[in-house]
Amino acid sequence: MFLLLVLDLAGVLVFAVDGGLTARAATRLDIVGVVSLGMITALGGGVIRDILLPDLPPAALRDWRYLAVALVGGLVAYAASERVHRTTARPIKVLDAAGLSLFAVTGASKALAFGLGPFPAALVGMIAAVGGGTLRDMMVGKVPGILTGGLYAIPALTGAGIVVVSAAVGAESHLVLPAAALVVFTVRMLGLHFDLEPPSAPAPPTT
Amino acid sequence: MFLLLVLDLAGVLVFAVDGGLTARAATRLDIVGVVSLGMITALGGGVIRDILLPDLPPAALRDWRYLAVALVGGLVAYAASERVHRTTARPIKVLDAAGLSLFAVTGASKALAFGLGPFPAALVGMIAAVGGGTLRDMMVGKVPGILTGGLYAIPALTGAGIVVVSAAVGAESHLVLPAAALVVFTVRMLGLHFDLEPPSAPAPPTT
Amino acid sequence: MFLLLVLDLAGVLVFAVDGGLTARAATRLDIVGVVSLGMITALGGGVIRDILLPDLPPAALRDWRYLAVALVGGLVAYAASERVHRTTARPIKVLDAAGLSLFAVTGASKALAFGLGPFPAALVGMIAAVGGGTLRDMMVGKVPGILTGGLYAIPALTGAGIVVVSAAVGAESHLVLPAAALVVFTVRMLGLHFDLEPPSAPAPPTT
Repeated sequence: MFLLLVLDLAGVLVFAVDGGLTARAATRLDIVGVVSLGMITALGGGVIRDILLPDLPPAALRDWRYLAVALVGGLVAYAASERVHRTTARPIKVLDAAGLSLFAVTGASKALAFGLGPFPAALVGMIAAVGGGTLRDMMVGKVPGILTGGLYAIPALTGAGIVVVSAAVGAESHLVLPAAALVVFTVRMLGLHFDLEPPSAPAPPTT
Repeated sequence: MFLLLVLDLAGVLVFAVDGGLTARAATRLDIVGVVSLGMITALGGGVIRDILLPDLPPAALRDWRYLAVALVGGLVAYAASERVHRTTARPIKVLDAAGLSLFAVTGASKALAFGLGPFPAALVGMIAAVGGGTLRDMMVGKVPGILTGGLYAIPALTGAGIVVVSAAVGAESHLVLPAAALVVFTVRMLGLHFDLEPPSAPAPPTT
Repeated sequence: MFLLLVLDLAGVLVFAVDGGLTARAATRLDIVGVVSLGMITALGGGVIRDILLPDLPPAALRDWRYLAVALVGGLVAYAASERVHRTTARPIKVLDAAGLSLFAVTGASKALAFGLGPFPAALVGMIAAVGGGTLRDMMVGKVPGILTGGLYAIPALTGAGIVVVSAAVGAESHLVLPAAALVVFTVRMLGLHFDLEPPSAPAPPTT
């Protein structure tokens, strides 16, 4: 489906810039490091999705457009003026929220197309959405956002769930996918803006 | 096989509680973080096993009971009173030993059912047993127990080996699987209790 | 192909020693930890390659020679006299460069044999080459060399590219594979010797 490809590539692009900027923020990496982390962030979630479905070799390897878009995103992050960073960490968070939104809905949609049931398909969407960022964080030695980042996995699962429920009731997917992505993005950005966090367990004494 | 499923789900449950408690001990995570790390610990080893066999999509996605049990385990860890921690780190180690034991034998058994030879099947069992805990440790920035934890991989490989040898000589698996799991658990707990460690290489000068 | 197997096993051997020595250098690990990290380093890249192709169960599980060679390499690293370390970190870097070279060309060659196009095949070669070392670094809590290590991914991609281009023009692969591996090794060692680094982005303020 053409729409699915376009949304998927848009997710790749924003995640590639996000990962590249993260590389620059986390540690002084050279151009190969910045582009590599950008591409891993961009393609990691989709590759994990394609392994689970399975759809191998993964689309990221079969279709040159994935690699080209990820490469461009990584180079954009490398070339971005320092002012992009100097302001705040905001650009990374907005890009990350956009990638999260797009991959949640394309992941769930692709999983349905591969014959998975509604519940597994929603999970695949969530995993595709958080996978690239999780790899990115693990590589630079940070605890992944899915564990620490407040409203992160929940909006992704919600968006994937909207896609799955819409398919079950026969809704027109050309409208559903962008709308569901917008819901994820909005919830994620509201969560960031108002610093919403799910309830925390009381801190235990160190063991 | 029904017994295999029951033991596998028991392993999922104890690993989910284990992972969730680890999340609370490692860093002050919110409910999503605790449940997420619990579910990753619980399902990670089985997903790696199913990718290697291959049996895709993995059982953890195809069968809702895996997800339900992992979710329950994560919530139990979140709801556990602080006293569970305050005593010592013992509950995590006991749960981890139980999960290790169960996944070693179910992993080897499933690998045999998928036609792998005895030696690869024993390895798949060991990988299934240590996989979830290894992901858990990498995500919270700890060196995985398989590298540092004394008698960890060895008992898992032993238990998987018992399953494989028993199958080769035609022993009745209904008795073998629980017995082999008990052997792994006992060796692991004795190792912890007496602080047994395999021999260490002399510490090199830092390079 | 016999040559492919020999080169692949040579890569497994050098990576196993490399990973085992890294384990000893990074942290005081026992024999199980040293051998485990050696085997993960040795087999990780090939397993990732085989998942992506897909060729499952991976060769590392199906063919006992992979495991045997990796085990021997890990034990060699454990048994190596302390003088191996005391000199410098040089042995690890030379072994790592050798493994990188061998896996880049065998990975690309295997990917072509599985019907992948030239560009994806070159990427699979690069991923196979850097995969084991990346897992190794993530497990001991280091930022992977692919992100920080100067000329690391580039020579691997170059060597894989030589294999792919040679196949496209019908060159005799018995000569091509060792020659391409030699190119990767030479570029990598020159990069280390002259401390060549790709250009770096200006360090951003911490965000």
